Amino acid sequence: MLNFAFQIPTKIYFGRDEQKNIGAYLKQYNPALRKLLLHYGSDRIKRCGLFDEIAASLEAAGIAFAELGGVVPNPRVGLVYEGVELCRREGVELILAVGGGSAIDSAKAIAYGALYDGDIWEVYQKGINLGKALPVAAILTIPAAGSESSKSSVITNEALELKYGHSEEVARPVLSVVNPALFATLPRAQAAYGIADIMSHIFERYFTNTAHTDVSDELCEGVLRAVMRNAPAVVNGPGGYDAWCEIAFAGSLAHNDLLGRGREEDWACHHIEHELSAVYDIAHGAGLAVLTPFWMTYVYQRNIPMFLQFATKVMGVEMNRDAERVILEAIRRLREFFRRLGLPGTLGELGIDGSRLEEMAKKANGVAFGEEEWKQGNFVTLPWQEVLEIYRMAL
Amino acid sequence: MLNFAFQIPTKIYFGRDEQKNIGAYLKQYNPALRKLLLHYGSDRIKRCGLFDEIAASLEAAGIAFAELGGVVPNPRVGLVYEGVELCRREGVELILAVGGGSAIDSAKAIAYGALYDGDIWEVYQKGINLGKALPVAAILTIPAAGSESSKSSVITNEALELKYGHSEEVARPVLSVVNPALFATLPRAQAAYGIADIMSHIFERYFTNTAHTDVSDELCEGVLRAVMRNAPAVVNGPGGYDAWCEIAFAGSLAHNDLLGRGREEDWACHHIEHELSAVYDIAHGAGLAVLTPFWMTYVYQRNIPMFLQFATKVMGVEMNRDAERVILEAIRRLREFFRRLGLPGTLGELGIDGSRLEEMAKKANGVAFGEEEWKQGNFVTLPWQEVLEIYRMAL
Repeated sequence: MLNFAFQIPTKIYFGRDEQKNIGAYLKQYNPALRKLLLHYGSDRIKRCGLFDEIAASLEAAGIAFAELGGVVPNPRVGLVYEGVELCRREGVELILAVGGGSAIDSAKAIAYGALYDGDIWEVYQKGINLGKALPVAAILTIPAAGSESSKSSVITNEALELKYGHSEEVARPVLSVVNPALFATLPRAQAAYGIADIMSHIFERYFTNTAHTDVSDELCEGVLRAVMRNAPAVVNGPGGYDAWCEIAFAGSLAHNDLLGRGREEDWACHHIEHELSAVYDIAHGAGLAVLTPFWMTYVYQRNIPMFLQFATKVMGVEMNRDAERVILEAIRRLREFFRRLGLPGTLGELGIDGSRLEEMAKKANGVAFGEEEWKQGNFVTLPWQEVLEIYRMAL
Repeated sequence: MLNFAFQIPTKIYFGRDEQKNIGAYLKQYNPALRKLLLHYGSDRIKRCGLFDEIAASLEAAGIAFAELGGVVPNPRVGLVYEGVELCRREGVELILAVGGGSAIDSAKAIAYGALYDGDIWEVYQKGINLGKALPVAAILTIPAAGSESSKSSVITNEALELKYGHSEEVARPVLSVVNPALFATLPRAQAAYGIADIMSHIFERYFTNTAHTDVSDELCEGVLRAVMRNAPAVVNGPGGYDAWCEIAFAGSLAHNDLLGRGREEDWACHHIEHELSAVYDIAHGAGLAVLTPFWMTYVYQRNIPMFLQFATKVMGVEMNRDAERVILEAIRRLREFFRRLGLPGTLGELGIDGSRLEEMAKKANGVAFGEEEWKQGNFVTLPWQEVLEIYRMAL
């Protein structure tokens, strides 16, 4: 096991009706709070009554708010600029995101930008460490990204076709409301994308060459099994509050760092997927569902015991001395599981052809920018040529 | 799943040599910190060089310290009084416990007492909510109690033969160092007591009547399996750093509240064991190892499915339509597991006879004090007569 530091600073308020207490929870966090920015995506939160519940709770707590909607999946830096401007003009003290990972990531970028004099896009592109940001809070409406308790955020520059992440402790939400009843009306596809993203967050941590990681192995495997047990119900019906609770709890755990403590993490799939989303504007979860089984197929021979553990403990394949057969059956089951959720199995199904694969592989590893290559992944280290190979397998 | 709030505010620094950074970590927590109380048990920490490492790190960070040793298992209120006095006299700003649960619990009591004008024992006996305490930090040398990241503490009044717990968020350590290399020299019996305590912390949360708790079931089961896989090595040899890492990580998770979120918890075994320790001054873990299998035997018929899940997923018993046989085999395996760690299997082995059982059962449930009875447990609610029945089974 590797040395590590660990903490979950975000206070999660989990369960029915908790959004109605958001004003009180924010006052508990900061009794002096007077004004926040309510940041969200579509008008869905107004049509379903959520906006009014939040507004009433804030009003009861004596907290004024500005509002900025319009966040889209793969959130854009253009709206971030607008939010930064608004925060300064209105004297906003905290950003309250209402939505999924996109709204929360966009809120984090605005939170950095509000206290930064330079161009916020450069912070994402160049990895500038700021050390300060307005506090962020969240009311989750799509469980997937885990952004409600993570320090990370990803912003897209649509003009440049670039998508970059930025992580600082100051951007981690101070508190988040997770009420699984709010997820009940999610479109089927979005629920499925969320499942793929949650599972990928665990896979990125699970596949490791670090020895002696029994506890975190068990945590990863257990949460993956719980997700797979409940995902078909929330995607294909009958859904229901309790199944959504499991997915939501798993979603927070998947990305609050606990499951990766003491082990080297991988993150190749996430990074090579970001290139797809940046160029083709596909849903992150859809890209992950396609790439993950191909990544597994490409890398499994480098660590057969790790994949045997995955096959038997996560995918429920019976052990057999023909190790490759056991592993390939596990990958087949994962692909079939994604398929049953209505997720795509190839890049072709996402409308992606081979014309820009090399360009994306070179961008993923930095060689497109004339920089020294950064190779993808730690479990298996992939030069851009191998990233390209995985893209090609997935066509 | 029940509504819940969740956070792990304690920052855990886990791994080799981390105690050497304690001064820097404390300065990171509070750059203005000037003086603390170093609180510990025996002189073992001086003989093994740990004390000098800590002193050097504090000195390098410009933090002065007073010291108070002498904490014993089932920590006494007498030493707490002494510590409170010392803190006031010396202008101490933080308590740094070096030791296991006893030292950390004693530190929490001193931390409350230093800011409280009344009698600190009354706080424990009457459950007075204080809302303030000096900050507490810890360097763990015995993984067991989970006190390094919990808000709870238990103090014994040896004159009154009473042992009471008190829990407030303000007493939760702000940071803790967990270096499993420090556990390597623990006496075998103490290692075994720790294992029993860790497992009990999980059992208290695991056995529940709350429905739809897939994620936390998996977390409990996974951590229990990891503990049982590594316990024989740390108790019976060959031990080693990596096995201790698993036990230590599990010990922190077992008692930082994560594993019980969204489910009703039980806590009967812990409470009825406290009466044994208070009267007979036995090790908490030894009492738990005796009582837990008898408690299981007494209650399993009230929730057969829960115990079948335990039997098959935790104890590895193969499912069979003779449910009682499956469950009784699981309890037998647990008892055998404890036995292999050198833990006692009956109260008789702890030198406890039947003479004071009724008195302890009545104290456990409050009827000894002329109060309205508080029944033990939530998974199964036990009036004092049933607590007595379990004590008698365990003789």
